[in-house]
Order: sequence, then C-alpha cells, then structure tokens
Amino acid sequence: MPLEPVLIGGRLKASVAPAGAFRAASPLTGEPCGPEFPVSSFDEVETAVRAGARAAEELRSLPTEVRADFLETYARLIEERAPDLVETAHRETGLPAEPRLRKVELPRATGQLRMAGEAARDRSWCRATIDTKANIRSLFEPLGGPVAVFGPNNFPFAFNAVAGGDFAAALAAGNPVLAKAHPLHPGTSLLLAEAALEAAARSGLPAPAVQMLYHFDDEAGLRLAAHPLIAATAFTGSRRAGLRLKEAADRAGKPVYVEMASVNPVVILPGALEERPEAIARELVESCTLGAGQFCTKPGLTILTRGPGADAFIERAVSLFRDADPGVLVSRGTIESAARVVEELRLRGAEVIARGKAPEGPGCLFAPTLLLVPGSVFLSSPRDLQAEAFGPVSLLVIAESREELRSVVSSLEGSLAGTVYSQSGDGDEAAYRELEPVLGQKIGRLLNDRVPTGVAVSPAMNHGGPFPATGHPGFTAVGIPASLLRFAALRCYDGLRIHRLPPEIQDRNPNGRMWRLVDGEWTRRDI
Amino acid sequence: MPLEPVLIGGRLKASVAPAGAFRAASPLTGEPCGPEFPVSSFDEVETAVRAGARAAEELRSLPTEVRADFLETYARLIEERAPDLVETAHRETGLPAEPRLRKVELPRATGQLRMAGEAARDRSWCRATIDTKANIRSLFEPLGGPVAVFGPNNFPFAFNAVAGGDFAAALAAGNPVLAKAHPLHPGTSLLLAEAALEAAARSGLPAPAVQMLYHFDDEAGLRLAAHPLIAATAFTGSRRAGLRLKEAADRAGKPVYVEMASVNPVVILPGALEERPEAIARELVESCTLGAGQFCTKPGLTILTRGPGADAFIERAVSLFRDADPGVLVSRGTIESAARVVEELRLRGAEVIARGKAPEGPGCLFAPTLLLVPGSVFLSSPRDLQAEAFGPVSLLVIAESREELRSVVSSLEGSLAGTVYSQSGDGDEAAYRELEPVLGQKIGRLLNDRVPTGVAVSPAMNHGGPFPATGHPGFTAVGIPASLLRFAALRCYDGLRIHRLPPEIQDRNPNGRMWRLVDGEWTRRDI
Repeated sequence: MPLEPVLIGGRLKASVAPAGAFRAASPLTGEPCGPEFPVSSFDEVETAVRAGARAAEELRSLPTEVRADFLETYARLIEERAPDLVETAHRETGLPAEPRLRKVELPRATGQLRMAGEAARDRSWCRATIDTKANIRSLFEPLGGPVAVFGPNNFPFAFNAVAGGDFAAALAAGNPVLAKAHPLHPGTSLLLAEAALEAAARSGLPAPAVQMLYHFDDEAGLRLAAHPLIAATAFTGSRRAGLRLKEAADRAGKPVYVEMASVNPVVILPGALEERPEAIARELVESCTLGAGQFCTKPGLTILTRGPGADAFIERAVSLFRDADPGVLVSRGTIESAARVVEELRLRGAEVIARGKAPEGPGCLFAPTLLLVPGSVFLSSPRDLQAEAFGPVSLLVIAESREELRSVVSSLEGSLAGTVYSQSGDGDEAAYRELEPVLGQKIGRLLNDRVPTGVAVSPAMNHGGPFPATGHPGFTAVGIPASLLRFAALRCYDGLRIHRLPPEIQDRNPNGRMWRLVDGEWTRRDI
Repeated sequence: MPLEPVLIGGRLKASVAPAGAFRAASPLTGEPCGPEFPVSSFDEVETAVRAGARAAEELRSLPTEVRADFLETYARLIEERAPDLVETAHRETGLPAEPRLRKVELPRATGQLRMAGEAARDRSWCRATIDTKANIRSLFEPLGGPVAVFGPNNFPFAFNAVAGGDFAAALAAGNPVLAKAHPLHPGTSLLLAEAALEAAARSGLPAPAVQMLYHFDDEAGLRLAAHPLIAATAFTGSRRAGLRLKEAADRAGKPVYVEMASVNPVVILPGALEERPEAIARELVESCTLGAGQFCTKPGLTILTRGPGADAFIERAVSLFRDADPGVLVSRGTIESAARVVEELRLRGAEVIARGKAPEGPGCLFAPTLLLVPGSVFLSSPRDLQAEAFGPVSLLVIAESREELRSVVSSLEGSLAGTVYSQSGDGDEAAYRELEPVLGQKIGRLLNDRVPTGVAVSPAMNHGGPFPATGHPGFTAVGIPASLLRFAALRCYDGLRIHRLPPEIQDRNPNGRMWRLVDGEWTRRDI
C-alpha cells in the first residue's frame, strides 16, 4: 500500500524517502484506523521551506484580494465537504460528530477563514500610519517568508495547522504557510489540504503558498523553526514541546508564538458561593468536561474560601463529576499523561474527591476526576499543584481566609484566562477589588461569572497571556484582525515618491473603507 | 572621596558594597574626568528590582495623568538644567555642545518626554477595542513590573536609559524603569536622575518608579534580564551584548527588545549617479561623519554600479573624506573597535581609498575612513564585509551590473534603514522596481533620496527592523505612541460588569478624545 501524499510545492505527491510511516488510532475503538501516512525526513521539510520561500515572493506581487478570495473559497469548499470531514475527524479524534464537530467547530473554522479573508480585503489590519507633514508612512507588511504552523491535537478543524486560526491569520497577512498537521488526525488534515489546494487553484493563489506535512521528528521541527528561510513559527500544544521550539527560534532570531499549557484559574468569592453554589458548580463542571476537558481554556483550578456555600458547592460538584460519563480523549498518550498528572497532584497532597463513571469499553476513555487540596498545602508546592492535566480533571483549592486565597492567586503562573464569580449584588465588591489586580497580572483574559471555555472570535478577544501560557504577552492567537499582527513586520517609508508607496499608504484610500491613522486621526478618507 | 550615589528605592544614596568604582574618561583629552562612580553588585541590582516591583503595584492604582505630569515636569526640569547637562555630556562624550547637544539632542529628548506624556494623557496608545454585542473588551496595559533599560554610549540624552526614548515609552505605558546608564557618561546620567527624582516628587509619581545604576558586570546584566520580577528589557548597543541579553531574557520567557548593529545600506541607481554624483557624495559623506559616525543609522555600506557618474561620485567622496576633520569618538574602546573592523574589511579585500585628516592631539580622535570593494569580492565574504564599524567609516561596493547589485543587496543582513537614490525623473524606475522588493525585506525603514541618519520622532516612524538589527520585526524604538506597545500586555475583559472595567474600556470615553475601536469603527465617541 502506498503512503498517503504530502502537500508540497503546490502538489499532493508521494513523500520522498520518508523517515517512517504511521496510522491514526481511533480513540473510539483504540484500534488503528485509516490508511498509512508518511513521516517526513528533514530533506522533505527543507524542500517545502524552499518552495514556501518562492511562494512568498510570488505572493508579494499579487493583490491582497487574491488572499481574500482564497480564504473565502476555502471556507466554502470545507462546508461542501463537511460530511466527509466530520466523519473522518470523528473517527480520528473521538470528538462527537454532533453537535461538536458539525455544528460548532466546523462553522467556527469556516467563520475564521471568512473573517481573515475579510480582514485581507479590508486591510485595516495593517495599521497604516501616515504623517503627511513629514511624508513618513508606515504599515505592517507580510514577513517575507513562509510561516511554520504546528497544529494541536484537540481541534481538528478550528486550530488545524492547515485550516485553523493560525493558518488563516498567517495567510491573510500575506505569508505562505507550511503546516505541520497533528499526527493524531492526518486523514482530516489531508481532506483539508485537498480543499485548500483546490481553493488555491480557483482563486489564483500560488499553490505552494499552502503546504502540509503530517509528521516529522522533534529535531526536524527545531531545525524548521530556526531555518533561515522561515519567517516565523506558530505552535499550539504542550509546554515541553513549545519551549523547545521557542528556544530554537529565539536563538535564530525568528519570531515565534507558542500557546502552551494553562490552568485558567477560577475564583469563587464568598458572596457568590453563598448565593448560588449549585448553579456555579453546574457551570463549572460542564466547562471542565466539555470536549472531555481537552480545551486550552478548561478551568483546571478553582479557588474558594471555606464558609457558607462551600460545602454545598463541593457536594454538588462531587455529585456532578460522579455522574459524568467517561470522556473520550484523543489518544492513549493523552490518557497516560492525564493519569500521570493526577498521580502527581495526589503525591503533593491533593485528594481525589470524585471520579466519574468507570470507563468501560475499548476506546480512549477517561473518568472525569475532581481533586481537592487545602490552600496551605497548595502553597507548599504551588508549582507542582498547578500542572495542567489535559482532560476532564480539575482541582479545587480551599483557602481558609481571603488572605490565603490572595496568596494562592499570587503563586499562580501565567494562564490564558481566569474567572471571578461574585454575588449578583455588590456583596463581593471589596473582595473583588482586592483580588482583581493580583489575578489580572496572571492572565490574558478576565471573565466575570462565566466559564473560560468559549473563546469568541471577536476583534476584542485575547487568546494569549503571560508566560508560560504563551511566549509573549502582547499577542493573541484568536481575534481577527489582531491575530494577523503576529505574522507581520512593521515597515516605514520615509520621504518616498508617492507612486512608489504600497497602495495602503498612498494618498488615496485603496478601497475607500480601510482605516488609517492620518496625522493622529483614524479615518477612512483619502488624503 | 565617597563614590557618587545611585538612585534606588526613591532616594539617591551610597551604593551598598559596590563591586568596584570607575570614572568617566573625557574623549576630548583622553584623561579620566569627574568624580568616581560605583559599580553595583548583583545584590544592589536585586534591591532595585524589588523596589521597582513594589512601584509597579503602586503605579497601577494611580491615574494615568500622574505619569503624564511626571514626564512633562521632567522635560521642563531638563530644560532648566540644560547648561549643566550640556557641559557634563560634552565633557563625558566629546560630542559638540553646540549645536549637537544643546540644540539638537536635548530638545529631542525633552520633546520625546512630552510626546510620551501626551500619549499617556491621551490614552489612544492602548488600542482599546470594544465588542459591544458580546461585551468583550480589550486593551494594552502596563506589564506589571519594572522594565530594565540599558542605554547606549552614543546619545547621552535622547537614548539615555534614564531619560531617552525607551525610558519615556516604558514609563508612559505605566511601568517603572530600572535604568542601567552607560558608564561612559555617568555624570550626565546622575544629573538626569536628580531631575527625574525631583519631577517624581512634584508630580506624585512613586519615586521608586525611576531607578538608576551606572554599571554592573555582564553576569549581573544577564541575571537582571531574566529576573522573575522584571517585566521586560530594552537594550541599545552592540550585537554581542544584545544577543547575550536576548538569550537570557528569552529563556526566562521575558519580552526583550534589542537594537543592535546595523549597516543601513544605501543604493545609488545609475540614473542618479549620472545625474548628480557630487551632490549625493556630499550628502552621504556628511551623513557618514555626522556625530563622528556614531549613529545607529549611519550609512555603513553604499552600493553602486560601475558606469557614468561612478567615477565622479567616488572622486568627490574621496576628496570629502580626505578633507574631513578627525571625529571624536566616545572612548578609546570605540576607536580600537572601529580600527579593528577597518582591518577586518581590508583583510577580506576592501581597500582604504580615503582617510581624513590625521588625528593630532590627546583626545579619542579617529580619521574618517572610506573603503571600497568590488561587488564580486563582497559576494565572496558578504557576512564579514558588512560588519558595522561604529565611527566615521563607510564602505563602497562597486557592482559590475544590475544583477550583481541585486545579489549584493540579497546578501545583506537585517538593518534599521536603507536608502535608494534615483534619478529625479523616471530614468531609474525599472531598476527601482526590481530592487525595492529585495531591499525592502532587509530593512525596517526605506528612504528615497535622503540619508538614513535623522530619525524623526513621528507616529509613522519605524526605528526597528529585521534580525539582527533588532530582535523582532514588529516593534519600533522611536515613534510615539507605537514604541509604548513594547512595554504593554494585551488584556481582555470578557463579560465584565461595566463598573469593574478599566476606565479606558468603559462605555464612556474617559477623556473624550481617546481613540477606541468600537464594533469595527475607530471613534472618540462614548458608547
């Protein structure tokens, strides 16, 4: 049986001298499923980088509308092929076909592609800034080389390296993408790559602007991130892999955006706990078990103070966890990793207070697990007790006082998001005001009375946060057009003849609707 | 004699257990001048970091107007003390008191401080983004800790760690600054620190929000950039030192902005060369020798093609270099380093074609030096032949053809700026169109028919560029308000009760003039 093709240099073709082969394993059955896919050698990665570099040059000479057309056509083709995509993704990831994959994630992915297309068409993303008096003008431009995108295991569509948010942002900003799909859903990625290739042909995008490999070893990944012809790297995944990639790219002076582990602390203030312990418990447990807990923004740590409502909250949370069905995790490895973290949390003094229904059957099943640790114990090993367990696992921290709660929050590392639940009246205002400045420093997004799962693709979204949740606190991976700025270089044109300027900063507004900062005023007018 | 005081924790006080002492050496005489200053131990650095971290908390609770008042008061005090500052800086750096220090650099520094103050007052810099439908709102906020600023040797006011562009940007964005002054102008830095301390007292800024040390060893610098309580580092100086700091900060997951060596290529197209060889030669030589060539944007490399005008250009440039007075460099070390680079360029095949007047006298004098290398020779060691010689040194590259010229430009590393001279008519348009995409990828700022020295503090300026000119192509060190974004974290507020939001993203525009992106429209209106 020949191996499935890779997408290189504008064609789906057989991998050259692959370093190995692999199959997906269905989390539903635990058995290998689907055809064999190649593991690429570094030579193949190199071939793709070179083709991507040539595509970057081609892209520069094409109007931005080509990127927009491509992104919109691609979204349409994904929708046309939804049944096949959903079925394959369901088989490879175990995520429910309905509603998750079909009704939630696939529309999110196509919505993102369309928004990125609209951003490319609108061009406001490039923040054209014009000083008419000095004739100095600047804007964000494509980086000038291919962007390497490493996709995660948990979102086969919306964060897929060849179709997700990073892909859409990098492409919309004018960069070719070299996608490293996640090897847990290679068949889904191949279907997407086929659609991307067809969309490129229909829209006039240079086909090598989209390339995809399924798998290569760590060493090849590090060399890719540091490659002289690579413009930048975006990665979503584990902290261990993210930090290694970041180090390789940093050394080479290459921009790198890593989105890594995050426990997303939830704090329940005393008034809220007394007012609606059961409702909060229900919301929180649903958020912890959504997608079998395989969300970057899953609330992994909930902090509350002992007092009225705490017992009712814990009792309700325990009962909901016990009733929860086993979650289907994306792989055996994910199960082992989650189990290992649970074991580590126990070793450090956390107690398992609830386990969901015992897994039965052949698949990658994991019983939802709730742990509890006193605040004082947490504070004795804060680092170890905030390890992320990727899966339906969550840790409750019970503080003895507001002061201890504050200390626990102070001891947290950077997270993507954090929530504060407070009384619907103003009963928790004083506690909130005391806590907010501490918690605010630890997170990229603060929520009130909402769970952190559910990352709207809003221009005001921040799916980013302080290290080690990400590598830089100034960038977001979700939210268009801001996410495009990760893949752009600021360039200034000082005293240029007007006709030589990029259209975005000539006197005439190129499309009549792009926002530009002209002499300190944001405007859509011509100069 | 006691050592001069350091500025720590809000007071000018004796250095505790200094690791050593040093004096400035006057470049005018070559002799040590002024009093003795302490070299700080890492313990002292640590004390300053801790005081800065407390100041960050204090700053957070103060209205943004306090920062604005401070920056504006500081500018005024610097002007009041100009005679003393100019005299000291002249003695320590050898830069001309008039016009350079008094009429150019000091007004630039106070102008920057005022613009940063205005940015803090105006608040548009924080790019408030509001999605009213989803009630998701975001903005850039201070980083939450002190910013370490390492100042360079060449601008005792405008880039001074305790008064220059990085200082102003970090402070305006709401961060305390821990300044590492350059040890070549400690007396100037002390005068500035005194003014800053007084400005803090007058404006109500927490005094430890501005701290200054003169000197510490490399190891302490690396530990500072990686310190858990440090929010970010900004550095201007040599590539060697910059890369080491960057590595230390990167490993610790700390944002770091390094502005390093840059040759700032100038390309003279054939039509321009034929049209006005002597005028261009004059502009260029003036730019090469301005400030004795100690500018980050000095044109270190000029590329032209053999042909009509080339001989006239070279002849004129040679004659101007020969007539040029020796430049006063800021230190003996700078002389040695420039001489070493000239030697290396010669070893690689460049020829010295002009040397300015022979240095006479006791100071740090260096004869302006012009070198020439054929394009083919340049292409045989492009890396070595683009080494930056900090001082009045420049290298001409003579290409045999447009193709060779393009190859030379292709072989360049990242620079801050680059210029293309072309014929005043359209005689060079084809060559320009061919060259621009290649040169554009190598630089942060493109100029036409202007020398790259002269970096206007315009909102549209980019004083940044591709690695290794800087560490990230998306940020600028000059140009307010963009330069503030280096020292800010994106933070999102998702579903918050309105009264709990930062004033910048509440429904009411906090000052009636701040620009906000509301539902996709830039506006100054309330919601």
